[in-house]
Amino acid sequence: MARRTSRRREHRAVDAINQRPFGQAVNPYPPIEPLSADHVAAIHDASLTVLEELGMEILDAEARERLERAGCDVDHGTGVVRFDRGFIEERVAKAPAEFTVRARNPAHSLHIGGNRISFHAVGGPAFCSDLDKGRRSGTIAEVRDFLRVCQSLNAIHSVNGLVFAPLDQPAEVRHLDAYTACATLTDKVWAGSLLGRHRAADTIEIACIAFDTDRDGLKAEPAVFGNINTNSPRRLDEHMAQGAIEFAEAGQPVVVTPFTLSGAMSPATIAGALVQQNAEALMGIALVQTVNPGTPTVYGSFTSNVDMRTGSPAFGTPEYVKATMASAQLARHYGLPIRASNTNASNVVDAQAAYESEMSIWACAMGHVNLMFHAGGWLEGGLTASFEKLVIDAEMLQMAAAMLDPLVVDDDSLGLSAIREVAPGGHYFGTAHTMARYETAFYKPIVSDWRNYETWEEAGSKDATVRANGIWKHLLATYEQPGPNRARDGAIAAYVERRKREIAAMAST
Amino acid sequence: MARRTSRRREHRAVDAINQRPFGQAVNPYPPIEPLSADHVAAIHDASLTVLEELGMEILDAEARERLERAGCDVDHGTGVVRFDRGFIEERVAKAPAEFTVRARNPAHSLHIGGNRISFHAVGGPAFCSDLDKGRRSGTIAEVRDFLRVCQSLNAIHSVNGLVFAPLDQPAEVRHLDAYTACATLTDKVWAGSLLGRHRAADTIEIACIAFDTDRDGLKAEPAVFGNINTNSPRRLDEHMAQGAIEFAEAGQPVVVTPFTLSGAMSPATIAGALVQQNAEALMGIALVQTVNPGTPTVYGSFTSNVDMRTGSPAFGTPEYVKATMASAQLARHYGLPIRASNTNASNVVDAQAAYESEMSIWACAMGHVNLMFHAGGWLEGGLTASFEKLVIDAEMLQMAAAMLDPLVVDDDSLGLSAIREVAPGGHYFGTAHTMARYETAFYKPIVSDWRNYETWEEAGSKDATVRANGIWKHLLATYEQPGPNRARDGAIAAYVERRKREIAAMAST
Repeated sequence: MARRTSRRREHRAVDAINQRPFGQAVNPYPPIEPLSADHVAAIHDASLTVLEELGMEILDAEARERLERAGCDVDHGTGVVRFDRGFIEERVAKAPAEFTVRARNPAHSLHIGGNRISFHAVGGPAFCSDLDKGRRSGTIAEVRDFLRVCQSLNAIHSVNGLVFAPLDQPAEVRHLDAYTACATLTDKVWAGSLLGRHRAADTIEIACIAFDTDRDGLKAEPAVFGNINTNSPRRLDEHMAQGAIEFAEAGQPVVVTPFTLSGAMSPATIAGALVQQNAEALMGIALVQTVNPGTPTVYGSFTSNVDMRTGSPAFGTPEYVKATMASAQLARHYGLPIRASNTNASNVVDAQAAYESEMSIWACAMGHVNLMFHAGGWLEGGLTASFEKLVIDAEMLQMAAAMLDPLVVDDDSLGLSAIREVAPGGHYFGTAHTMARYETAFYKPIVSDWRNYETWEEAGSKDATVRANGIWKHLLATYEQPGPNRARDGAIAAYVERRKREIAAMAST
Repeated sequence: MARRTSRRREHRAVDAINQRPFGQAVNPYPPIEPLSADHVAAIHDASLTVLEELGMEILDAEARERLERAGCDVDHGTGVVRFDRGFIEERVAKAPAEFTVRARNPAHSLHIGGNRISFHAVGGPAFCSDLDKGRRSGTIAEVRDFLRVCQSLNAIHSVNGLVFAPLDQPAEVRHLDAYTACATLTDKVWAGSLLGRHRAADTIEIACIAFDTDRDGLKAEPAVFGNINTNSPRRLDEHMAQGAIEFAEAGQPVVVTPFTLSGAMSPATIAGALVQQNAEALMGIALVQTVNPGTPTVYGSFTSNVDMRTGSPAFGTPEYVKATMASAQLARHYGLPIRASNTNASNVVDAQAAYESEMSIWACAMGHVNLMFHAGGWLEGGLTASFEKLVIDAEMLQMAAAMLDPLVVDDDSLGLSAIREVAPGGHYFGTAHTMARYETAFYKPIVSDWRNYETWEEAGSKDATVRANGIWKHLLATYEQPGPNRARDGAIAAYVERRKREIAAMAST
């Protein structure tokens, strides 16, 4: 009886949600490149001038000491570290061009680099939102629900340990419950926070338990990744430096992403913003390679611009498109994988959210971005994680992947037999050529409604956002936990309990 | 006093609507090409086999006779015409690779071909819609309003003589009022209907009056264009053939667009649909070149697919993207300009309408489509012309154009002076480098709202579609007729009155 129920549930899910199988997108075309070779050389040269002449303010003493031992010019009073060009070039060259990150389900492991694109779910917002309850502070229960929907969406290739802030949990331990959710409710690659050494270490320890291995085993086969941001302009804070050092020591991939909003935290030109982004990204990558040469590192790009009248950040703009494609060129120049994002600045899941996201997605796809952060669920310039946007993003992402599938041209697909069969003014519905392709011929949408107006109206005149609301609820209702494992899940819970006690004890001393 | 009022109105318009100047988009990148050279050759070969072996059913006796005189194999009983490969190749080669269409305002003339992209407003829907009055049959007054908004939007480069059907006018004379509106309310290039010889002739006569020239003058400098569709599969009806012959004789550009929905009117593979599209497009172009060698002709692509479960047409899909880019390759193979469209199948101006349109726009941009039909206002698979969609399309179109602007990289834009000026953790708002670029640094949106959530909420929580509603009304309220000319406009009105009497007399005989 239980079996029958389960089958019926599967059947309903298949009926309602059309998904492509899990799989990274592959771009068979040459990348679109806004920079000439001379432009790349000019940006490279100017950014190394910045590091050599002006340097970076590095607030973490350990990071400064490591760089000093490696021969950098350090002023411990001001915290400013200056870098020789040769040092930067030599260290950056130690990073691998491509690498693999293991997922608990081996079919969900990701290869980062080359012409492959991975879609990484939203991370970091302060709020969550859906059509039922609106925009609000989130809870750990809602973080878990969001991760369940991410697990159920094949277009989401990896998830973020800090989906959005679960404000019902104390700030210092939030990450532990969120990591537990990633490691037990999904079987996909997940990313931990690099905000401080302890959060990074907790990521690594929980990953070791999840993969039944130790730090050496994890180093041999990386299984989590993390992202650091520089505090642009030209500052790396203590938490980020410590997180990066911890991950580098553990050999887990580090993404280094300057937050260079043009006109605010970097010059009011895309070229200038790229100079500063490049300086800061190379600095962070050189630090990671100094700690542990050969650690997988990713060149992170987040260059967009502000609205000059209001100072508001703008995303998915023409400037964002060009900065993203140009950043990918710079990363390729250094033989590094490139991270960018699926961005938008809309306050609601509307046409603006969709067109700004499509601008971002196409920029990533045409520019050969390898790791698309915030690919699912990002809204309101990153302040909100939206359940409906997650579903609409999944549609846009799998459309992008399908659009990059090679066009098949062979005797069979050319279809002369079918063309011969159909009289002028006739139709192809019943031809053998059509019938053989009935199920698989074309892309099947998740959200898009192609019914005629009258049928759509009779069904309630639901726009795409309202339909997305029904879809995430359906995915949540039909969610099944992938491979629960009592021993492993219990060990994670025990680790988390112990860490919570330790952190509480530290706070009370 | 009148002068002051006029200035204030201009000022308000400038405040409210940020527009790029009028100008065709130019793609500086190589086109994205889904087909290999072998694939192009295979599609070419298969499509010429279709024309040679199966032929086309051509319902118009005059077209058949012209083709028979040119050496084609004609069966007047069945209407089927078969074409030698050599004939097709030789006739298609007579068409120019690029051409110019004059607008009444010379600054609005368009050059069609190469790597330029033009945005042509919607044409042909049965309905119009806006948020106030919903979806409905349109009137000639509403057609005029739609054209006024098109005139005011710089991102709309040309307009369609049959924007949507003005159902308050008799079917046989609707085109006359709509053409009058194009020729007097806009100073942009406009397209006339090729549905029958008389409509095509009326287009040409009204254009002659508008440009104060005769048929020879118009032929020397084309000033209108038109589109014919084949009734796929493999049929050309009498009206379309007659319209194409009339335009070819007058030397005005003809776009030939098969309506090859894959799985319905063409094989259920994109390769097969392209074979059939290519056969039908080349046939139409060869006909035009037989009537008048050297007439500007455009290869029209409209290959999308149906939803196999329901038969509903789908647009802006991954298949549409690939078919559009591949069609552009075929057109380039023949040295012809290429037309495609900004399509979507949504019933409402929502996220789906936006993401399907962006898929279409990017396909056109990356594929080097020269003439983007239905670029502004198309909704519901072409059944409806939407005022709000027109405004949102204008935003997406000018974003695409801005994204294709070259990225400037020079000493000034690299911004080292500004980077030297700002301390770590500081900001660029007040630097001389930023201040010098305050007004012009970045793309300014028409519809996008980048304000923070609280400010947006206080302003009424308006989504992009609601904001677009306010914008078209503002454009309509501030519209000023370009260069009214009593003599010319009176002559057009007199022609239209005469033709209405003639058409009524013909109907009553």
